[in-house]
Amino acid sequence: MKIVLFGTGAIGSAVKDVLVEHGHAVVSIGRTSGDRQADMTDIASLTALFRDLGTFHAVASAAGEVSGAPLEKATDEQWAKSIAGKGMGQINLVRAALPYIADGGSFTLVSGVLTEEPIPGGSLGRTINNMVEGFVKGAATEMPRGCRINCISPTVLAESTHYLPYFVGYTPVPAREVALAYLRAIANPLNGRILKLHKTDS
Amino acid sequence: MKIVLFGTGAIGSAVKDVLVEHGHAVVSIGRTSGDRQADMTDIASLTALFRDLGTFHAVASAAGEVSGAPLEKATDEQWAKSIAGKGMGQINLVRAALPYIADGGSFTLVSGVLTEEPIPGGSLGRTINNMVEGFVKGAATEMPRGCRINCISPTVLAESTHYLPYFVGYTPVPAREVALAYLRAIANPLNGRILKLHKTDS
Repeated sequence: MKIVLFGTGAIGSAVKDVLVEHGHAVVSIGRTSGDRQADMTDIASLTALFRDLGTFHAVASAAGEVSGAPLEKATDEQWAKSIAGKGMGQINLVRAALPYIADGGSFTLVSGVLTEEPIPGGSLGRTINNMVEGFVKGAATEMPRGCRINCISPTVLAESTHYLPYFVGYTPVPAREVALAYLRAIANPLNGRILKLHKTDS
Repeated sequence: MKIVLFGTGAIGSAVKDVLVEHGHAVVSIGRTSGDRQADMTDIASLTALFRDLGTFHAVASAAGEVSGAPLEKATDEQWAKSIAGKGMGQINLVRAALPYIADGGSFTLVSGVLTEEPIPGGSLGRTINNMVEGFVKGAATEMPRGCRINCISPTVLAESTHYLPYFVGYTPVPAREVALAYLRAIANPLNGRILKLHKTDS
C-alpha cells in the first residue's frame, strides 16, 4: 500500500519504520521536513498535495500540536492555534484526501490520553482530543466507497522527554508500540474505533 | 440566585420559566433578543457583559448553532461557524465569566444526543458536541473558588418541529424536561457531569 503519513516527530518516525518493515510505501509529510511539505491548517495546501500524489491507499496522521495552559490563563491565541492544528487540521486532512483516496482506503488520526484523563492545564488537550475522536466516530458513519477511519490515542511517549514531566505518574508508552497500533488500524477492517495505548484502564 | 442565561429559543425559554418558578432572577442574553445582547463568538463582547452585570451566581447556555451537512459536502464556512458558535462560543462564555462569577458559582453548557448517536450529516454536530463535553470534563478539574461546570445533552426537542425530520426514530424530549436538568445542574453539587436527556440508553 502507498501510505501518506503526516508528522515527522517521535510517533511519525516510528510509524514510518513499522510501515516500511511491513512492505508499505510511505510518503512522509511535514511542514518543513519529510518527503513532501504541506500545512495542515491550510486546506488548499492539502488539496494540492493529495491531487498531486497519484493513487494512495491510506492517510495516517501523527501531527498536530495543542497548548498546555491553565484554564484561567490560556489565551485566545492558544485556543485558536490548538483548534486549527490538532483539531481542524486533522479534520482537513480527511476532507482534502477523500476525493482522491483509493476505494477501501483508510484514515488514521491521533488523539491522546487527555481525552479521558486530567493533568494540570490539560483542558485544551482534553477539548481538542474529544473533538478529534468525535469527528472520527461521526465520519466513520459517512465514509464513502468502503473507506474507513480510526483514531490512535497514546498516553505520553517514553521518547518524549520534554513532555514526561507534565504526565506525573503516567506510565509512558514506547513509540514503537503506538506505531503498531497505526499498522493495526490500517491493516484490519476497523472503522470508527479509538485504539488506546494508555497503560492504565482508569 | 442571579443566573445569566444565554439563548432565547425553545430550550432557553423553558429554562427561564423553570428558574423563575423556583425563585431565581434570570438575565437572558441573546444576539438580538433577551434582556441584554452579546455575541458568543466575540469574547470582548462577553467580557464587557459580565463586567457590567454585577454579582451573578450561575451561567447557563442554551445557545450555539451547528450545521448539518454530509461530510463530503460540508464547507469550510460551515465547519468554522459551527466551531466558533456552539464550540468555542460556549468555551468563551466560561473563560469570560470566570473572573466575575461569585465563589461557588456554576456553569451549565449544552451539547446534545449527537455526541454519541449518528444521524445522516451529523458529523459536524458530533465533532462539536464532543468538543464541548471534553471541555466541560477538563474545565471541571480546573474550576477555581469552588465553582462547578456541567453539560446538558438533550435529544431532539418535541417543540423543534424544524429539526424533528432529521432525527428519524428518535423519541423527542419536551423542552421543560430539559429545563429541569439545567435546574438540577445549577442547584446540586455536580461537577464535570453530562446530564443526558436521550430517551434511549443505546
